Amino acid sequence: MKLAEGRRRVVIEEVQPQVDGGKYPAKRVIGDVVEVTAAIFGDGHDHVAGRLLYRHESEQDWCQARFEPLTNDLWRARFPVDRIGAWKFTIEAWVDHLDTWAHDLVKRLDAQPDPKEPTAQVVSPQDIPLALRIGANHLEAAAGRAEGIDAKRLTEAAAQLRHLADANLPYYESPMTPELEELAARYPEMSFATRFERELPLWVDRERARFSAWYELFPRSCSMTPGEHGTFKDMESRLPEIAAMGFDVVYMPPIHPIGVQYRKGKNNSVVAEPDDVGSPWAIGGKEGGHTSLHSQLGTLDDFAHLIQATQKHRMEIALDIAFQCSPDHPWVKEHPDWFTIRPDGTIQYAENPPKKYQDIYPLNFESKDWGGLWDALYGVFKFWVDHGVRVFRVDNPHTKALPFWEWCIAELRKTHPEVIFLAEAFTRPHVMYALAKAGYTQGYTYFTWRTRKDELQAYFEEICNPPVSDFFRPNVWPNTPDILHEQLQEKDPARRRAVCQLRAVLAATLSANWGIYGPAFELCEGRAAKPAAGKTGSEEYLDSEKYQLRQWNRKDPISIAPLLTNLNRIRRENRALERNEHLVFHDAPNPQLLCYSKATADKSNVILVVVNLDPGKEQTAWLDLNMDALGLPWKGSFVVEDLLNGKSYTWKDQWNYVALRPSETPAHVFRVVRP
Amino acid sequence: MKLAEGRRRVVIEEVQPQVDGGKYPAKRVIGDVVEVTAAIFGDGHDHVAGRLLYRHESEQDWCQARFEPLTNDLWRARFPVDRIGAWKFTIEAWVDHLDTWAHDLVKRLDAQPDPKEPTAQVVSPQDIPLALRIGANHLEAAAGRAEGIDAKRLTEAAAQLRHLADANLPYYESPMTPELEELAARYPEMSFATRFERELPLWVDRERARFSAWYELFPRSCSMTPGEHGTFKDMESRLPEIAAMGFDVVYMPPIHPIGVQYRKGKNNSVVAEPDDVGSPWAIGGKEGGHTSLHSQLGTLDDFAHLIQATQKHRMEIALDIAFQCSPDHPWVKEHPDWFTIRPDGTIQYAENPPKKYQDIYPLNFESKDWGGLWDALYGVFKFWVDHGVRVFRVDNPHTKALPFWEWCIAELRKTHPEVIFLAEAFTRPHVMYALAKAGYTQGYTYFTWRTRKDELQAYFEEICNPPVSDFFRPNVWPNTPDILHEQLQEKDPARRRAVCQLRAVLAATLSANWGIYGPAFELCEGRAAKPAAGKTGSEEYLDSEKYQLRQWNRKDPISIAPLLTNLNRIRRENRALERNEHLVFHDAPNPQLLCYSKATADKSNVILVVVNLDPGKEQTAWLDLNMDALGLPWKGSFVVEDLLNGKSYTWKDQWNYVALRPSETPAHVFRVVRP
Repeated sequence: MKLAEGRRRVVIEEVQPQVDGGKYPAKRVIGDVVEVTAAIFGDGHDHVAGRLLYRHESEQDWCQARFEPLTNDLWRARFPVDRIGAWKFTIEAWVDHLDTWAHDLVKRLDAQPDPKEPTAQVVSPQDIPLALRIGANHLEAAAGRAEGIDAKRLTEAAAQLRHLADANLPYYESPMTPELEELAARYPEMSFATRFERELPLWVDRERARFSAWYELFPRSCSMTPGEHGTFKDMESRLPEIAAMGFDVVYMPPIHPIGVQYRKGKNNSVVAEPDDVGSPWAIGGKEGGHTSLHSQLGTLDDFAHLIQATQKHRMEIALDIAFQCSPDHPWVKEHPDWFTIRPDGTIQYAENPPKKYQDIYPLNFESKDWGGLWDALYGVFKFWVDHGVRVFRVDNPHTKALPFWEWCIAELRKTHPEVIFLAEAFTRPHVMYALAKAGYTQGYTYFTWRTRKDELQAYFEEICNPPVSDFFRPNVWPNTPDILHEQLQEKDPARRRAVCQLRAVLAATLSANWGIYGPAFELCEGRAAKPAAGKTGSEEYLDSEKYQLRQWNRKDPISIAPLLTNLNRIRRENRALERNEHLVFHDAPNPQLLCYSKATADKSNVILVVVNLDPGKEQTAWLDLNMDALGLPWKGSFVVEDLLNGKSYTWKDQWNYVALRPSETPAHVFRVVRP
Repeated sequence: MKLAEGRRRVVIEEVQPQVDGGKYPAKRVIGDVVEVTAAIFGDGHDHVAGRLLYRHESEQDWCQARFEPLTNDLWRARFPVDRIGAWKFTIEAWVDHLDTWAHDLVKRLDAQPDPKEPTAQVVSPQDIPLALRIGANHLEAAAGRAEGIDAKRLTEAAAQLRHLADANLPYYESPMTPELEELAARYPEMSFATRFERELPLWVDRERARFSAWYELFPRSCSMTPGEHGTFKDMESRLPEIAAMGFDVVYMPPIHPIGVQYRKGKNNSVVAEPDDVGSPWAIGGKEGGHTSLHSQLGTLDDFAHLIQATQKHRMEIALDIAFQCSPDHPWVKEHPDWFTIRPDGTIQYAENPPKKYQDIYPLNFESKDWGGLWDALYGVFKFWVDHGVRVFRVDNPHTKALPFWEWCIAELRKTHPEVIFLAEAFTRPHVMYALAKAGYTQGYTYFTWRTRKDELQAYFEEICNPPVSDFFRPNVWPNTPDILHEQLQEKDPARRRAVCQLRAVLAATLSANWGIYGPAFELCEGRAAKPAAGKTGSEEYLDSEKYQLRQWNRKDPISIAPLLTNLNRIRRENRALERNEHLVFHDAPNPQLLCYSKATADKSNVILVVVNLDPGKEQTAWLDLNMDALGLPWKGSFVVEDLLNGKSYTWKDQWNYVALRPSETPAHVFRVVRP
């Protein structure tokens, strides 16, 4: 059985960006110029041409962009994305007989015997007139596909070719001009064009999806009065400081009523004292569940005021969505079928045998009423979206069914494509990436545990390049309320402060999205619940805010707020740091010095970072710079200006010396000034 | 809008083998055990399980194989392919609650207080009985999915678990056995199983598709009488010698009538003398076209006799199919619409402006009657298949439309899945690979021009590993009637013979499929039409058989027939050389020594080759062997036996010394003898 049309001779392959064969959208951000590459080729020596078709989901008609050849049958086209939401693109390609003819004509003309210098005649006398008649046919056909003035010009050009052919000259100049070829190319013969078999999806987010600085804090710790439960109002008073440090997302742990049954006491003790505040992640009480507020924080009006106050500081609030219930959550009584019931009739609490977490009931995504459960969970997001929240940090999304996320995020985006979802999934790579494919805008990463030069470089090369970077956007955190890395537990305050500083520089410059669990990191809190010593220790904070109120002395001279402020300022002033895709590592022959650069696509802004991974000692090296990545010639002088301290150095060629003393600075963050 | 079933929690990704998302089949050979890998995972901590479904196209029912976990969510299953033709496979995977339960039970039991050594009780008294009841439910459910004795055993096991739970013991031994877990795993709960969205195609060839040694010769040069046109009968007399050298495919250039108009004379001269025999690739004359025989070669009966005679020598004939026509081809008159007509009414001959090939008319795959053309071309293959040919070498397939090949090869294979197609496509990589995807069994390669160590290694690493090796099977040739590589044009006979020898060793051992343009290579013919000197020379043979008869003196002492015989014998006696997928390069710190090994999957046969790429001088090196690739421990002695000369050496550990003198041998071809 034959094809309906067997003359589609062009093949379109290896189309990029493409995530899992188009099953999931590649991700971009508004304002991006999307670069589409593909292998486009046919049989034989005929030239081929292709065009990209693209459109926003709300448009009916395709826009077009022409493909330009790269090398070895690879082609590239570009299109700008000027709206957020879902886009599609596909490709058409065809044999370009006119271009083949024009190319051959040049070779025929070149082979004419020069009348001034007669040699063996390579083309026979009738060859060129015949070629001109063939070209005239092509131009006439193009005229037939054109209209108005274009059709007229093409018809005239065809007539001119015929006229020339009839003239039978002894020697011909080329009758083709670049303008004429360009004009004809706009009306290609597409009867036998191949169309790529899929329309590939693309999701376009707003800019904060790609570039953000998060500050996490517990509103209940925001009271200025020691021992008093903080409120949304108290938190508002913290906003100016956070904004001054340059953060743009203020993220709060869950703000819902907290369960009483099996409530955890201070330092995760299994028995709570009467005045213990409990973990905000044990969600639900008599007052309500995921759409209620913990009454000590404030009312919905207070919450609305907080949202507005945050916006005034050009920041936005991120809510923590943790889909799990305390035994006191209303759903436990209203929808016991959304949980797993054990043979004794009780509800299955969270477990990692033999460990038990009896204060938490996980939801059962294999519930018979999975549809009702999905609706309710969607309803939680919808409720907070309706109350002005546009950024969500989702707790342990990897313990909820992936098809649910795919549905829920798509559903929310139908009306609110601007919503950002950050996945807190510290889990196996495939699962982290599956969440990103399912729709998560950003994801937590392994950065927190990557401390050595080799592992930092390997990890960021993985996550900042395709295929991963097409769907997964890292948001890197040096700490979280759950993770005080062993490196941050350094006893010596000066060294501990140096560690915090170098981790801050790495996070803020390696990744366009970064965040800190704020006060603890800012003030270099290093006390662990059970000090880490190799693998036996704990990454839990001592006196963790997860279980108790904390007062933080932001005036403590150990504070690294000045550096955080500096880093966020540098990020905002240098577009190179807004993206991850032009991250390049440079050789620094010292295992304690990590050197990398980021640049805008046009190299108009280039940042070169050198971090001393050793918090204790001066480290030096002769850097071996990749000058191409810096947009510099391989020979010659240039200036690097350290944006952390304003000092400038004149460097020369690719080899340059650096020395970093932890007591002075954790790093150089250079702007490269072109000569 | 929700899914019909939202509880399919398992994701199946990264399925291999998969060519272009399943658009084209991966290729295997009968007797292969196909290894399928995939990422299989779900949310949370529940265990997952999966099974492979596979079937030959002629079967209705799927066969099954269970997946076993590798690392990091990757899984593997295997199945044997015992029939040639089209196969399909896909995957089902699901959350394995019973396995999760059994795994947790072990942890619960381990956490029991030891009665002999009382400590703090980790599990509470009712925990284990409750867990046993949950397990009993799982086993009963499995029993409900089983039948007969299996159902009975599972029911009994469930009852036993309930009985144990009722006993409320102070300490429990595990009631689960590996046999019981295995039995239960055979009846999994699959209500919410995920099925991979595609059925992936696989094409299974006969063994010669993977492992073959080709000998090309011109039957018209086979006469024993100088100046006389050889016949199929003459060629039969050559078969014993070719078989004795160990070749198994005897390939003849086209055997059809040769055009008279614009016939090329000796050495490609544009004017032929009256007695010039013309190029066999200028197909078609008064006597007929692609389904006719050149009368001087013999009749269809003679051809049938040749086919039989070849089979008696355990070889087979490969025909050359060149879809192009001389101006005298019957199709030119019968189907002028299958060609391109120029404005002056003449048929367009082949051109590479300003070069003209007026003896050749290319077919026009954009003909209005493309359907008729396809049928006719298919008919050519069908005709020769009906006359006993099962191997085709196709001339310049890259200048014919790719959709045609995909259709034509699939159509032929419906009745003759055993047919082998070798693509003579010396063209760009994407096009070579597209032909392989379209169905070509084997393809010519760039081996002919890869002479340096680094380029040989890089090229064979590309073509012998996935993704390329899943669809492209290289057939490597040191020479062809069109290509006498500059290296083979060496003036000094001893050096030239050394070059031919080392190229033969490389071709025969790097690739499971290899071939030579026989007499010229065997006898180290090195005279070029226009000697190659850098880029200005020619790769054409002087007095090429393409345009004239040649007599070959096979008794010439320069002949490398003994080496060819040796190489083909070694290939047949060592299964390691039957495949490409276990090719590993070893470090030899000398740019003139190329060292590599091939091994069977179980390492029962391991061949280690060291080739001296320098035809002039002795080269030595301390090899740095990858002992894992050789199936050897990193420390200890082992024996390597040179299969070319029978000498054995005892080597030790990974570093071993070799010295190769071109005057003695071009290479070591060692069999590794395990200690």
